[in-house]
Amino acid sequence: MATIKDVAKLAGVGLGTASRVINNSGYVSEVTKKKVLKAIEQLGYVPNETARAFVTQDSKIVALFLPSIHHPFFSELAFYIEDELNKNGYNMIICNSSGQIEKELNYINMLKQNKVSGIIGITYNSIENEINNSMPIVLVDRHMGENIPYVSSDNYAGGQLAFQVLKDTGCMNVAYIGTFSKTIITEVEKRRKGFEDAAKQNGTQCTLYIEEDPIKDETAFLNSFLKIFKDINGVFVENDVMALKLVQLALELNINIPEQLSIIGYDGIETYSALRPRLSTIRQPIERMGRSLVELVIKRINGVPVEPAIHSVVFLQGDTTIS
Amino acid sequence: MATIKDVAKLAGVGLGTASRVINNSGYVSEVTKKKVLKAIEQLGYVPNETARAFVTQDSKIVALFLPSIHHPFFSELAFYIEDELNKNGYNMIICNSSGQIEKELNYINMLKQNKVSGIIGITYNSIENEINNSMPIVLVDRHMGENIPYVSSDNYAGGQLAFQVLKDTGCMNVAYIGTFSKTIITEVEKRRKGFEDAAKQNGTQCTLYIEEDPIKDETAFLNSFLKIFKDINGVFVENDVMALKLVQLALELNINIPEQLSIIGYDGIETYSALRPRLSTIRQPIERMGRSLVELVIKRINGVPVEPAIHSVVFLQGDTTIS
Repeated sequence: MATIKDVAKLAGVGLGTASRVINNSGYVSEVTKKKVLKAIEQLGYVPNETARAFVTQDSKIVALFLPSIHHPFFSELAFYIEDELNKNGYNMIICNSSGQIEKELNYINMLKQNKVSGIIGITYNSIENEINNSMPIVLVDRHMGENIPYVSSDNYAGGQLAFQVLKDTGCMNVAYIGTFSKTIITEVEKRRKGFEDAAKQNGTQCTLYIEEDPIKDETAFLNSFLKIFKDINGVFVENDVMALKLVQLALELNINIPEQLSIIGYDGIETYSALRPRLSTIRQPIERMGRSLVELVIKRINGVPVEPAIHSVVFLQGDTTIS
Repeated sequence: MATIKDVAKLAGVGLGTASRVINNSGYVSEVTKKKVLKAIEQLGYVPNETARAFVTQDSKIVALFLPSIHHPFFSELAFYIEDELNKNGYNMIICNSSGQIEKELNYINMLKQNKVSGIIGITYNSIENEINNSMPIVLVDRHMGENIPYVSSDNYAGGQLAFQVLKDTGCMNVAYIGTFSKTIITEVEKRRKGFEDAAKQNGTQCTLYIEEDPIKDETAFLNSFLKIFKDINGVFVENDVMALKLVQLALELNINIPEQLSIIGYDGIETYSALRPRLSTIRQPIERMGRSLVELVIKRINGVPVEPAIHSVVFLQGDTTIS
């Protein structure tokens, strides 16, 4: 296999000149550049990319932290992140990190060593003390220190919108179903706050039915709700997966949906859009969020300051609310 | 930041000795090794991983080709592949390659340059001419040349099993619904073959309802089936996603499932297991397949010869067949 020495020799230039052309760094005259490129072509020279990364210190790899790729919201987001990274010449490493903080710390260490160029993080682990605002890290749905940028949908407005829809379709007794965390503050809690505030402003009775994340037995948790709160006729559930489960459990208990109980989820997951009954939900613009995450992390890799990006949401009418 | 030179100086050893300790290669006495490790600790020296990869030529990265991570079967498989790679010290790059052969070729080129160590490929692109059996590549559900190893479930037995279940529950007129490809031979076609052969051996009428992959309008394709083949009372569908769509379309047409029409899918996707009606399906052992793919690709990276791995399947009773 041809080496850079062979290229330099055939082109009649020094090793340094050949290297500058290959790495596209430093001044080389157009005439000399052409000679080197011709030699590269003639010899079928393939630059060793690892060696090149060693020189440029940009591995062109971004690590994506996910609780689990085996979740339809995360896999949909990951799809668009990979697509946008690829368009920008970056590769994406996946790190399924649910409950495994040491995996995330390992990648943060790789970032310090330039083995990865940046990190996009959907994380519920406590990594605050391991990162700082000079690192090219962008988070999803989570604040972590003043200056770590993040991307989220407008969770507060989403909560308000969910209440508005329930109110407009005649639900007079509503509930929010979801989780809370004692250790970290996530953007997701704004969904509850937006919903609660809107209900309060309207003078509507609003029940909070929440359990600490992760819920040990989600089926039992949801079944209890259906059996205890029989007067409630409108529910906003933290995410689509849990909302769909509630729909199914309600149907098994012969509760009419949406007449007896209206249900709204949050996410707008594409994987579930073909299912019946179709879930009414607050849709996050997943594709736009994915591409925006990549834009921000690349800016950070290049040392450009960035602002958080909050994306607006819409209501998707399905079969689980009165139309 | 401390360099390897600082480490060597503090330990009182040569640069080559310090390098051998850091890269764990070549002989170094225990006493000297301890000196170097102590110096590393005192200086807080972090080895540059890119530089290390340059020396060892194993990037510890495996690329996973998927048509799209935004598909519940692939994301479930990807989850276990990442988990097993991680346990073995490898990182996983995702390549969503549906219809984008140039993306796959780019990774194959990176493999040639040692930028990735191996490839696990779920691919429907024509890359036969770009790979050879000396490369550390393992495929899923697809033969490509004599010596490229692959992992699959026992698709032929799965097709036979689906027919057996339909027969045992009284379906006398059955159909296979799926796709075919003119350009490549996939393992998936064995599902059809197993089903067809079993029906023939039993003397049962069997209709093939197939269209070239990718199907342009799947809803129209499935609705046509339901409207034309009203006498058919048992169907085996190529995969769960399409089977679930058929279930929903049938319910919209007020066809009773399973009494009028029994439906069996293929995959056993976990994401759908909570949905109602629960799909009856032939379940691939997705976790075992994912871990087995990693085992094979690591053997290939280390130059160890391997055999294809065929995993057995089971029938999962749901609500779409008579129990």
